[in-house]
Amino acid sequence: MYKIASIGGDGIGPEIVAEGKKVLEAAGEKFNFAIEWTDFDIGADRYLATKKLVTEDDLAELKKFKAIYFGSIGDDRVKPGILEKGILLALRFHFDQYVNLRPIKLLDGVETPLAGKGPKDIDFVVVRENTEDFYVGIGSRFRKHQTIELDVVRDIYNVKFGLDVTSDAEEIAYQIGVITREGARRVQTYAFNLAMQRKKKLTSVDKANVLSDVYGLWRDVFLDTAKNYPGVTTEFNFVDAVTMWFVKNPEWFDVVVTPNMFGDIITDLGAMIQGGLGLAPGGNINPKGTSMFEPIHGSAPKYKGRGVANPIATIWAGSLLLDHLGEHEAAAAVVKAIEASIRDGMVTRDLGGKAVSTSKAGSYIAECVKKG
Amino acid sequence: MYKIASIGGDGIGPEIVAEGKKVLEAAGEKFNFAIEWTDFDIGADRYLATKKLVTEDDLAELKKFKAIYFGSIGDDRVKPGILEKGILLALRFHFDQYVNLRPIKLLDGVETPLAGKGPKDIDFVVVRENTEDFYVGIGSRFRKHQTIELDVVRDIYNVKFGLDVTSDAEEIAYQIGVITREGARRVQTYAFNLAMQRKKKLTSVDKANVLSDVYGLWRDVFLDTAKNYPGVTTEFNFVDAVTMWFVKNPEWFDVVVTPNMFGDIITDLGAMIQGGLGLAPGGNINPKGTSMFEPIHGSAPKYKGRGVANPIATIWAGSLLLDHLGEHEAAAAVVKAIEASIRDGMVTRDLGGKAVSTSKAGSYIAECVKKG
Ligand SMILES: CC(C)[C@H](C(=O)O)[C@@H](O)C(=O)O
Ligand SMILES: CC(C)[C@H](C(=O)O)[C@@H](O)C(=O)O
Repeated sequence: MYKIASIGGDGIGPEIVAEGKKVLEAAGEKFNFAIEWTDFDIGADRYLATKKLVTEDDLAELKKFKAIYFGSIGDDRVKPGILEKGILLALRFHFDQYVNLRPIKLLDGVETPLAGKGPKDIDFVVVRENTEDFYVGIGSRFRKHQTIELDVVRDIYNVKFGLDVTSDAEEIAYQIGVITREGARRVQTYAFNLAMQRKKKLTSVDKANVLSDVYGLWRDVFLDTAKNYPGVTTEFNFVDAVTMWFVKNPEWFDVVVTPNMFGDIITDLGAMIQGGLGLAPGGNINPKGTSMFEPIHGSAPKYKGRGVANPIATIWAGSLLLDHLGEHEAAAAVVKAIEASIRDGMVTRDLGGKAVSTSKAGSYIAECVKKG
Repeated sequence: MYKIASIGGDGIGPEIVAEGKKVLEAAGEKFNFAIEWTDFDIGADRYLATKKLVTEDDLAELKKFKAIYFGSIGDDRVKPGILEKGILLALRFHFDQYVNLRPIKLLDGVETPLAGKGPKDIDFVVVRENTEDFYVGIGSRFRKHQTIELDVVRDIYNVKFGLDVTSDAEEIAYQIGVITREGARRVQTYAFNLAMQRKKKLTSVDKANVLSDVYGLWRDVFLDTAKNYPGVTTEFNFVDAVTMWFVKNPEWFDVVVTPNMFGDIITDLGAMIQGGLGLAPGGNINPKGTSMFEPIHGSAPKYKGRGVANPIATIWAGSLLLDHLGEHEAAAAVVKAIEASIRDGMVTRDLGGKAVSTSKAGSYIAECVKKG
């Protein structure tokens, strides 16, 4: 019996999480486990009604779970950034989910925008660092001849910034990114271990030729960590170049590890080459704490309640969740069932096929899981 | 008569600049102007011999020119970052070349890696900010329990940072990005003016939902600037999303404006969709000072002297240079000649065709310019 938290969130979030639950429950029936869901009301509606994003109580409750099943957040009534930072990033940071795991895999029967590439060419995993870099939220903005004192304590590493900036510019803004040795080491170690289970090839992506301080440290740690994995072939790619190779030679990649911001960018590109955001899952993992699984797409408010949202990314994220719980057979069965639904055309209109509804697409996958 | 500075640089740089000069001289013959070249010996060889990157003397001399024709820098004997920052970025910053102009245009006869896309789908321009953001080179790296005092004066905007960081982390690195109101305004204004000459559509790319301080300012300035251009249709895209749309729907774009670092990334992706780095030119423009034109690729040391380097990106950069000098007809003739060489297969092996040498490919384009 697994206790799993769920946060439907905004827009299409609740609909697609509902389909994901259907499928995970079907997997439970088939593979002999039960799931008890605890739903959390977190998102734009509650925020607009109460001004609460994620409360101390939410965090204390969520902490009891090994896994959170997350839909999506984002709402047209709220300024960009508020919900993303106040909910999604707040959870990733609070639970120190330092690995953001994003498989880039073109499933059989899915179209990629890349000419002449097929499922055997597009099958790699991006391990995105998830708690540091330019996502730490340190920055400010001010007018001419002003001095700013900033004092930020990042709880994880106890980093304290006291900043004093003066400027003649009419208005100036700055943003600080932070990388620590331990922060780089832990996510890189995760990536090396993953590479050992796959084709033993690991690509590190950075921009050490320009952002030499943060990514210079990232590289040094990578070279250190690599010494423990003599069987893994490693390479460095600059982030600008890697976007080219994802498009031109995706077959070169097996496991890719990268700091937070570049990871954000290259995994969206990866999502597109695997057929689009409707098909791209992600896991936010703290191996010793509370992890969170989500589609990497947003809340698509304009499609809310219309039954057209593609549930596959969320269902696939559910498969990552099962993997995380150790239910590897069930996890594999879910991906197989997704592939069956694509083969049979029982997919939402974005994938063509029979253009069925969100709920029909989800139910079909659940049935396939049960039938095996 | 135009006086133009040239810097061949490292690796294949000198070979491709030689072809570019051939073509610009041919254009001069055809369109009645002469060029006087002044070559500068700047690059890895001099650095290794003398430890000099760009000297005060170099800068004083270069300042006399309206345009620099630049090859490429980068050498395996030098640690990544030294030459890039010490030469390329140093020139961009010193001459305050705040516009990095990068046309993304699929020429007739060139293959794109995108399925079902042709020259009419891929034809836009990225205007990359070129003097601010995370390229300002402010950052540091240090060990546990240490306090750092940083004092950086950016000459352009007179920004002074006094930074005091303490940390319990084993080792920590940070990097600071800066955006100023004036810095954003001038490059955005350039982009709006360009959009007015094209299809009157401008896309601003940022990540304001996470890096809210720097890119929040960028957005506010954009909204302000847009008020002066009621005829231009505008939109915001997040950088992660834009990498998807470049690949899926490049035909959506006309002019794209973006801060420095994201500009670096998305223009490499753009280069790939227009057929690869061999075909991607860039201009570093200061409308009132010394500008610099270059292929956006690197120095490819392993191809040096083998006669296989594709000179098209550099020749196309020469066309941007001519445009900058006001020689619009000659500039257009150079691009037409490049297209003719592709149609006739007189291209280097990376483009297939007759797989001719660097020098044959350049000469053919020069001939086509002369013949008109
Ligand atoms: C919504 C946003 C904050 C988030 C991110 O930037 O991490 C998203 O783009 C993602 O990739 O999960
Ligand atoms: C070589 C490097 C410093 C440079 C940059 O990052 O700007 C290059 O990638 C470019 O795009 O011109």
